[in-house]
Parts: sequence; structure tokens; C-alpha cells
Amino acid sequence: MESGPCSRPAEPRHCVSGRAGAGLAFPAFPLSAAGAEPGSRIGTVAAVLPAGGCGERMGVRTPKQFCRVLERPLISYTLQAMERVCWIKDIVVTVTGENMEAMRSIIQRYGHKRISLAEAGATRHRSIFNGLKALAEDQPGCELTRPEVVIIHDAVRPFVEEDILLRVVLAAKEHGCSDFDLEFGTECLQLALKYCHRKAKLVEGTPDLWKVTYKQDLCAAEAMIKEKISQEICVVVNTKDEESVGHLLEEVLRNELNCIKVTSTVLDRTSGDIENFIDQCYSFICVNVVSSESRETRKLLSILEESSLPLLYPVVVVLVHCFDFTVVPLAQKMENLVWIRELAKEAKGRNVLLSGVLLNHSQDEQKLQESLVQSAAIIAALVKERNSALVGQLLVA
Amino acid sequence: MESGPCSRPAEPRHCVSGRAGAGLAFPAFPLSAAGAEPGSRIGTVAAVLPAGGCGERMGVRTPKQFCRVLERPLISYTLQAMERVCWIKDIVVTVTGENMEAMRSIIQRYGHKRISLAEAGATRHRSIFNGLKALAEDQPGCELTRPEVVIIHDAVRPFVEEDILLRVVLAAKEHGCSDFDLEFGTECLQLALKYCHRKAKLVEGTPDLWKVTYKQDLCAAEAMIKEKISQEICVVVNTKDEESVGHLLEEVLRNELNCIKVTSTVLDRTSGDIENFIDQCYSFICVNVVSSESRETRKLLSILEESSLPLLYPVVVVLVHCFDFTVVPLAQKMENLVWIRELAKEAKGRNVLLSGVLLNHSQDEQKLQESLVQSAAIIAALVKERNSALVGQLLVA
Repeated sequence: MESGPCSRPAEPRHCVSGRAGAGLAFPAFPLSAAGAEPGSRIGTVAAVLPAGGCGERMGVRTPKQFCRVLERPLISYTLQAMERVCWIKDIVVTVTGENMEAMRSIIQRYGHKRISLAEAGATRHRSIFNGLKALAEDQPGCELTRPEVVIIHDAVRPFVEEDILLRVVLAAKEHGCSDFDLEFGTECLQLALKYCHRKAKLVEGTPDLWKVTYKQDLCAAEAMIKEKISQEICVVVNTKDEESVGHLLEEVLRNELNCIKVTSTVLDRTSGDIENFIDQCYSFICVNVVSSESRETRKLLSILEESSLPLLYPVVVVLVHCFDFTVVPLAQKMENLVWIRELAKEAKGRNVLLSGVLLNHSQDEQKLQESLVQSAAIIAALVKERNSALVGQLLVA
Repeated sequence: MESGPCSRPAEPRHCVSGRAGAGLAFPAFPLSAAGAEPGSRIGTVAAVLPAGGCGERMGVRTPKQFCRVLERPLISYTLQAMERVCWIKDIVVTVTGENMEAMRSIIQRYGHKRISLAEAGATRHRSIFNGLKALAEDQPGCELTRPEVVIIHDAVRPFVEEDILLRVVLAAKEHGCSDFDLEFGTECLQLALKYCHRKAKLVEGTPDLWKVTYKQDLCAAEAMIKEKISQEICVVVNTKDEESVGHLLEEVLRNELNCIKVTSTVLDRTSGDIENFIDQCYSFICVNVVSSESRETRKLLSILEESSLPLLYPVVVVLVHCFDFTVVPLAQKMENLVWIRELAKEAKGRNVLLSGVLLNHSQDEQKLQESLVQSAAIIAALVKERNSALVGQLLVA
């Protein structure tokens, strides 16, 4: 760690607003030894994630990086954010011996790639040092690429974006510094000067990039992740007809849920182009695409389950059945759809949350409109809260 | 503000963890002039809440103190926390002219007491000064008691507790100070020294007492408030019989929702002692206490609505109907209970969230147990999320 300038990323300048702690990025080894790709602006980059904390401030037993958010450990979200960045070649996570096995199973279960583990030290700096050693060692069997730049990133900051990481790496390769930062930056910069004999550079971050420290931060993280994966709803209809109830519902959803992007696709009996959507979207509202039997729904679910979607987030599927409540009795329809309950139990095990909405396709214009608005509200609740306790329910709009 | 020692309350010592900003408490006027109650440890206390901020860091148009949490403006929660403290005689809120009317209607709608308004100034300190002036003026018509101590508290810190306020007030009446605080406390302490020529005292706070600054703080505030009002569930049963399904459900709720306090009361046809609960609890699970008609439910709802409960928080009422699904067809039962949908619409307008759960009171021990556990999960979802979009639904366990 004594070999280069130290720069502090990803932090709102106003420390008073309190998103403290952070990461560093610096040339890890003499640049002559760096395996920089020709023409690359950033060269070979690796990341070290110290995850040895015990989270005593959280007021819970589980170390905060292993606390579950939407049933998935917090650190898995941070790993996901880092591995999304294709130019980060290796990601070394330092964990305590007792958590090593848990960490391995997290990596395996959620299919994380390019991750190596190193033993955490007694202090955060010691852990970082161990992580760097893992990257430095050219011992036989070590498949890690010797990096030119190493990013140090807290395991409990899940909302890091590529652009800020890029700015950090570029800053790490510069050698300027502002005295202002040394005066008013945090102790990390002073340490860099004192021990690395290097002036450090403060890199502006975003409010999103805050550290999960207290219990309320965990609540906030869950709320933000729910919001993030609920940004898009795909309405699956069975006809291109713009006058169809499916398109009417799509219209109402667009008006009522104004922060949410509403797309639509036509799923004919040959289950058309829904595959085009399953990389962008975690919420599918199927309007009249399945009849009162389970076959087509099973087909739809299998498409989703073959994708990697439910691996990382719960996927919401709402089957909307539209009919005139005065023509077909509600009770009778519910009996016909009782299979949804059983099917939902199976799907829940594969992280797909299935439920049904009965929409009153009334001839009365006003009644229809009321039911459309009510459906939109119910769908919003199912999509935003992703509560598995409500799967299999038939909700009446 | 030049007239006394200044102490900084309600802040975790580790500013690095970022619950920054805060309040002050100090003798507002020469103590000789103070209307201290004989024998009182704290004398006459008032509070000034600066609420002139524009919340630009929140990334939303609405000033953060007016952002809605569970449909209620954030500042109303802070007012509620302050007015709960009986020894705070007057609470002065400083708001900008353009928000004055909005603030008045908030005070009226949520029945806040002991609140006066003053115009906010160009800066936070100017606003505080205006608030103090409102307390100082002995002009005719001014009904405010001239206080001995004034607490300054951010309008966007809703989770302040009485004990910390008491410690702040007592600290304000002392005249000691630690040099450590001056060295390592924030600029507020330096200002106190520079302008008030007084050494200030740092009072330890709790992590809960953090400032709503960013969007994620608002998410956290909502999650914490939901958690707070979901700490207790009252199971209303129609019999003392310990073997009854109501008591079985109570038992399962106790096991499944281990963080939640589950109490129970017997509501006979004369609607017995439910009044004893309505001050402590915002969630009522009524097991078989209403038959398949709306009369008794209306009675129950009117008891709740006559209380002040729904004024501040949405109250959850779940009507659990237990019957053997093999004896009475589900569809038929749902038809009999369709009135719940209409009744829920009315109750929603009065901030009571009514829904139904159908529990399979099967002779098969295992089926019964499954349905009890499923009911508990559904009830937990309804209680914890309080989502008004789901009112009137009949959920099958």
C-alpha cells in the first residue's frame, strides 16, 4: 500500500450529510510491472472488498454485509454491482475465517463471477493488505491477473455505479491534489499523506453511494432495491388491438404509476417475443393471455425460470383475467382459477411471485374505468412490495 | 441567542457515522426572569423547530419536512414526538411565508397542540432567532409562556425521545464543558464559543435520531414508522375457550412473528373491552367475531373511528373467517362476504384498512396448521405494509 497515490472515491463532499467511510484506488505495484492493455485508458483493474466487519452498530447479530435484503445477503448486491463492470478483472473479498464458508456458498448460489476470497485481518487496513497480497502473489495456481490499479470498495455500499468507479481509477492514475481536500477531506487523505507520502485526491460521489451502517440503512437499502427493480412493468397481451382491455390497462398503468416505465408485448399462443423483455424487467402483467387453465401459465413461468431473472431478484407475475362480473359470477370464476394457488406455491420456490387479478370488464364505461384504476393500484402494490405472503391470491378489482 | 451556554443534543458521538446537524438548548433569557415552576428540575421549557428548508438534496420538489410518510407530512411526526413531552409548554415552528398556510392546515388536520408559527428567516440561524423572538415578546395577545429553557430541534428528525430531550435541557442548565467536545465536536460548538463566548457541551444521542436528508432517508423513515406501529397486534376473539381457532391463531402469530407483541381480547356481542387496547395498538385481527354480515363490523369500526387512532396512523383491521373449506365451498363464502369490499371502501376514507382472511378450519390437523401459518404470513404482510391498495380483498389461507 505504500506504492502510490491514494484517492478517495464515491463520497458526497458534504461529510456533514454523513455518507462516510469509502474506498481507495491506487496503482498497486510499480507501473513498469503493470499488465496494462495497449490503448486501454485504464489498464488492468482489480477490486478488493473488505468484508470482515461485525456490524455491531446495526444492533443485530449477523454482520451487516450478510444481512438479508429481499432474501439475499447485502454483499451479494455489492458483488453484483462490481462484476457488472466488465473492465474489473478480479474481485477479492476479504472475510473472517468463520464466515469463509458462508461467503463461498453465497458466491455459488448467486452465480457470482471473478470473485476470489482472502482472509480478513484484525483491522480494515490489514484486511485490505491481505486482499492486495492475494493479487500480488505470482505463486503457481494463482490465476489472478496482476493489476495496474486496485479499487478498494466497502462491501456494504451496494449502490456503486460504473461511472464513479471509472473516475476513481482515472484519478488514481493522476498525480495532482488539491490542498482543499487535505484540509477538509477526511482522515483517509491525511493517512495517505502521512504514510504513503502522497497527496490524495477527493473524488465527488453520489448520495446513492452511502454506507449501510445502521438498521435504518438496511430498511433504506431494501426500499431502494425494490424501487430499482420495479422501474419497469411489462404488460403481456394477447392481441395487437389497441382497443383491447389489455391496452386499456397498459394506458391506465402508465397514467397511474407515472414513475414506472410500462412496456408491452404480444404473447400469442406460440409465446412470442417475451424473451426480448426478460433481461430488462422483473414484473410481468399478463392480461387475458392465459385462459382458465394452467398450461399456458406453466409455459410462461418456464420461460422466466430458464432466464437468470429469478436468480437475483423475486420476479412478479400477475395474471389479469378480464370478464364482466354481471355475466360470469365472481365466485364461479374464482373456482375456475383455483389452480393459480397451487401453481403459485411451486413458483414461489423458484423466486417467481405469481398472483391473479380479476378485472371487471363491464359494459358500463365508468365501472370499467374504476376497475382498471383499482387493478393498477393492486398491481403497483404487488410489484413494489414483492411480498411472497400474497402469492396465489386472487385479487378483485 | 447571545445570552447563554449552548449545548448540542441528540447526536451519536461518531460524526463519521453521519447523523449530523441537530438542535441546541439554552437558557433563552436571564434566569432571574424565568418562570421556573417551584421544585421543578427543568423549569419552563419551550421548543423552536426550524422548518424553512427547501430540501434540494432530497431530489424532490417538496421541501423534505413536507414530504409524506404513510400519507402524513414528515413534520407532523416530529411535532407529535415533541408534543408527547408534557413539560414542553410551547412549540414554535418557523416556516417560510409560502408554506405558512400548508403548515396551518397540517396542524389543524392532525390535531397538533401547543404549536405556534413564526416566519422563517433567510438562514437557519435567522429562523431560530425569529422563533425565539416569538417566545420573548410579551405583547398583548401573545399567549406563549416566557420559557426558561428553549430546545432547538430540526423539523426533519422525527424520532426524538423524551429522555434525550430531558438530558439536553438539564445540560443546558449546567455550565461545564469538555475540551474534547470543542476539539472534536462539530462547528456548532465552535460557533457557540465564538459568538456566545460560552463553552458548549456535547450530549450523546442515539442512532435513531438521524436527519432526513436524502431520498433513502425518507424510505428509511417510512420503514421505521411502519415497524414502530406494527409492534403490537391485538387478536380479537369471540370466546375465552383456549382451544378455539382464535387462540390457535394467536399462538401461531406469536411463534411466527417473533418480534411482534401479540395480545388478545374477547369481544362478545356487547363489544367488550376492546377500548382498553385502542391506545396501544394499530392492528386488530378479529377471529370469528363477526358473522357473515356487516352489522358487527360496522360497530367495531365505529369504536376505532371514535378513538383518535386513525387520525395519525392507518389502522389495520383483518376479519378472519374460519370454516372447513370442504364443508362450505370457498366461492359461496366469498359471495356471503362480498359486503367487506364495500365496507372497506368507506373505512379507507377514514384511514382504517379493512380486509378479510379465509382460514381453512379443517378437521385434518396438518391442513389446519398449514392454513394457520399461511394466515399468519398474510396478516404479517397486511400489518407491516399497510398498503391501502389491498383493502376489501378476501385472502385465502
